[in-house]
Amino acid sequence: MQTPWEHRFAQRTQRMSSSAIRELLKLTEQPDIISFGGGMPAPEVFPIEEFTAACEKVMKDRGAQALQYSATDGYRPLRELVARHTSRYGIETSPENILITSGSQQALDLLGKILINPGDRILVESPTYLGALQAWSSYGAEYVTVPMDKHGMVTDALEAALRSGPKFIYVLPNFQNPTGVTLAMERRIQLIELADQYGVPIVEDDPYGQLRYEGDHLPSVVTLDNQFRGNCDACYRGNVIYLSTFSKILAPGLRLAWVVAPPEVIGKLVQAKQGADLHTATFNQFVAYEVARGGFLDRHIKVIRNVYRERRDTMLGAMDGYFPPGVDWTHPEGGLFLWGTLPENLNSTDVLKAAIEQKVAFVPGASFYPTGGGHNTMRLNFSNATPEKIMEGISRLGRVIYEKMGEPVTAKV
Amino acid sequence: MQTPWEHRFAQRTQRMSSSAIRELLKLTEQPDIISFGGGMPAPEVFPIEEFTAACEKVMKDRGAQALQYSATDGYRPLRELVARHTSRYGIETSPENILITSGSQQALDLLGKILINPGDRILVESPTYLGALQAWSSYGAEYVTVPMDKHGMVTDALEAALRSGPKFIYVLPNFQNPTGVTLAMERRIQLIELADQYGVPIVEDDPYGQLRYEGDHLPSVVTLDNQFRGNCDACYRGNVIYLSTFSKILAPGLRLAWVVAPPEVIGKLVQAKQGADLHTATFNQFVAYEVARGGFLDRHIKVIRNVYRERRDTMLGAMDGYFPPGVDWTHPEGGLFLWGTLPENLNSTDVLKAAIEQKVAFVPGASFYPTGGGHNTMRLNFSNATPEKIMEGISRLGRVIYEKMGEPVTAKV
Repeated sequence: MQTPWEHRFAQRTQRMSSSAIRELLKLTEQPDIISFGGGMPAPEVFPIEEFTAACEKVMKDRGAQALQYSATDGYRPLRELVARHTSRYGIETSPENILITSGSQQALDLLGKILINPGDRILVESPTYLGALQAWSSYGAEYVTVPMDKHGMVTDALEAALRSGPKFIYVLPNFQNPTGVTLAMERRIQLIELADQYGVPIVEDDPYGQLRYEGDHLPSVVTLDNQFRGNCDACYRGNVIYLSTFSKILAPGLRLAWVVAPPEVIGKLVQAKQGADLHTATFNQFVAYEVARGGFLDRHIKVIRNVYRERRDTMLGAMDGYFPPGVDWTHPEGGLFLWGTLPENLNSTDVLKAAIEQKVAFVPGASFYPTGGGHNTMRLNFSNATPEKIMEGISRLGRVIYEKMGEPVTAKV
Repeated sequence: MQTPWEHRFAQRTQRMSSSAIRELLKLTEQPDIISFGGGMPAPEVFPIEEFTAACEKVMKDRGAQALQYSATDGYRPLRELVARHTSRYGIETSPENILITSGSQQALDLLGKILINPGDRILVESPTYLGALQAWSSYGAEYVTVPMDKHGMVTDALEAALRSGPKFIYVLPNFQNPTGVTLAMERRIQLIELADQYGVPIVEDDPYGQLRYEGDHLPSVVTLDNQFRGNCDACYRGNVIYLSTFSKILAPGLRLAWVVAPPEVIGKLVQAKQGADLHTATFNQFVAYEVARGGFLDRHIKVIRNVYRERRDTMLGAMDGYFPPGVDWTHPEGGLFLWGTLPENLNSTDVLKAAIEQKVAFVPGASFYPTGGGHNTMRLNFSNATPEKIMEGISRLGRVIYEKMGEPVTAKV
């Protein structure tokens, strides 16, 4: 049936499309599929007992307040908790630097709203996080890319990209989504210096920074920027907007994340958020605060690290055993994802189709390239499936790749 | 300290500003102020016991699922519940017509994103809901206004406004925010016919429709549009996008609302929502479903109606007694607000300043006029304060207005 709605949609909707990842989430609803496709935390690590107790306490002590409207910038005790928590990772801020958002995706959307004029170029890693592209394309963003290698964004290519006058630089320095790669220390410093030299701000997206399974923690870009500026004020006033989230360290179903930024950026984001959803759910902020306070968050993050380290090791071991020679993959020191590269003559979307027939799924890498490329790459999530499922799923996927390569299966384990 | 951020903000931010209402919410945090300024439900009617039980049940039965990512369009049982619930108000739809949003404010924002090109005219009532203007101005909307009288939008003035080619018509037919006025039945039909004739869609915002304290329920615009089209399909495919919310019938602190629209509009909204916040909090949807199901919602709405009817009657009675001759106000049949008109020579912002000194607050009406006017109008909320506070607050406000009019106080009660 013909309807006139198609002609009514705004121009910007032509750049909107359903993300391959979100569509794939639907596949994971089939219980017989082993999906490495999404980016979901392990349900086994959700602190359900603590949440149950926190809900009861919040309802008993301040139920009416928890169910009422609240301030746009977020529940102040939670903002203070975030300030204390991030200081453990070297990010010294005051609550005036912090906005609570309805997930990091909202932070990306609000940043697009306050920063991007149609036609503005955004400098991104290639490949990069799809959700950021989704959020910003609807504000008319164009993309300038800098390639990735196993030490993160290739900063030697950064200066040329900066000469095109981007509005900001978007970087995921820790265990990047999709590649799992970490930005090397000397590159972090180079990034800050070049951004300062060209007067271009940095958006640092760090959903996984606290989930490191080996090696030493590297200071975040916002921390290094603060040191670079010699800022001795408790309130951060530099060149970096930092994003992180409770989704990977507590639970994504609450939709709770935060932005650290200079106060004038927070002020503008608050105005944008008023128009976007008034405020993040009061109840969720109260409950998350109750669960997280008193040191629970630090203890819980250790639990998550142990579970995910085992899963990462299982996946890496299984790939060693089941994947054919000629396939490469990253060795992430943390986070949720690793990145595979198939031989040049294979297309990972074709491989996915065959994989789904064998009841195993991943995300073809091409969708993470804002300006094309990566036809033979794939993103694999290792946080959501149990070690047993990971073994089985990688074994199936290995057979599919062997077949696509036209070679006999020769599993090494 | 000078920072370069001001020069970095996108052009659209020049049209963003903190809303007067939101700023006033801060005043209500002072316990000694009697505020008729916000639009908050009575905390006394929040079903805290039911929420406590629902949280416990959700955590016990499907805690891991409640804390996990979920689908963008919303929890299907909740969408089915909304479809059943709205059918009691004559709105026959299928779950394919329904999107769960993070509050109605998000629905307004997403509609702006998918419908408004910069420079598009939106036809609005004058005065109208400030939050809609806030959401749409950031997408570059301009406004064409149609005046209100005590029967709602003056549809005799509608055709002239439609000739300017608006992108859509925005209407709050029931107990409008800010005036409390209800759109008369014959005007609803005229609205639908004219919209159809000019090929302009309607956005019907109905947060309060279920909170009627006297008189008969009038069919919603979406229902009348469906009848007008003779649609016998369970799936609505007409010209109206309908918004409602759990904020006024359960609790605003959950940020849960819904859109009813033709499936192709829902599909486009889902794409926009993916980029905006991925999905509405899973946990909140599960808990609201547990609280609302099994007939509780209908019983609870009756409780709310009784509490708010008493508060409305108290406010109307107090105004009769304490307000000077020469001040007029509306007699809302439902909802949360009534609308006062002071003598022409008074400015309600001046009155507010004097009122705050007397520890009573309201919202000056001028901010609800998208193209100016209303300097002597005021919005008063009657849902949030107890009858005792309403009596005291209106008595104080009456004295302030008497003084501003330069007349001796002659209270009639």
